[in-house]
Amino acid sequence: MTEIEARKEAVSRAARLDAVFAALADPTRRAIIERLTRSEARVTEVAEPFHMSLNAVSKHIRVLEASGVIERHRKGREHILSLNTRSLDEVDGWIERMRCHWEERLDAMEGLLRELKRDHKPGPKDRKHGSR
Amino acid sequence: MTEIEARKEAVSRAARLDAVFAALADPTRRAIIERLTRSEARVTEVAEPFHMSLNAVSKHIRVLEASGVIERHRKGREHILSLNTRSLDEVDGWIERMRCHWEERLDAMEGLLRELKRDHKPGPKDRKHGSR
Repeated sequence: MTEIEARKEAVSRAARLDAVFAALADPTRRAIIERLTRSEARVTEVAEPFHMSLNAVSKHIRVLEASGVIERHRKGREHILSLNTRSLDEVDGWIERMRCHWEERLDAMEGLLRELKRDHKPGPKDRKHGSR
Repeated sequence: MTEIEARKEAVSRAARLDAVFAALADPTRRAIIERLTRSEARVTEVAEPFHMSLNAVSKHIRVLEASGVIERHRKGREHILSLNTRSLDEVDGWIERMRCHWEERLDAMEGLLRELKRDHKPGPKDRKHGSR
């Protein structure tokens, strides 16, 4: 991959993350995703449990489709929705990367604390109260 | 916890998830989080690598603070920003829960495939081409 290709890829990955995170920032849309983790479903089935118009649910479905989190295919006259788990993997990957960074930091801090503890030789009083 | 307390907790958890996912739906804000996974930092340090005004970065910082992803404390005249990893844990927990659901489904499908394979006794031709 050339540098320009790599940059383009980074930009489109960032745009995908923007869209997926924005799509997840709504309780109805998260509930739709939760429904589709169990099985693919028709639009009317997905809409059924929500106390809102089919039109309102359809708008949420379109946001999810545009972000790539869900996909639509036709079976005869029916529109079937299913989850595209790859887009959630990407979001998960981002959070995992953040977790790695701060866990490295915590490990480093733990190391420092251990060193401090070793340098501080406890007297008899410390020994009595110092452990938990 | 009473039923009403449990419902209130669910509503406020949903609102927190909304706010955190919305906060993450922007590349500058994700870059700020990435910076703060390395160490806490002054507002000016956080703003430095971005090609935008301090005011524009401050707006992003306020969105992150309002969502609970980052925290601010004062050290003398300085404002120090740090990460609140618990809020990202909550988001991670939600994605993890979705993953569990669909992995259960994949396991179930795998089981069905195994059953189908057992029922379909391969002839010599199948045996030749059927393995990988």
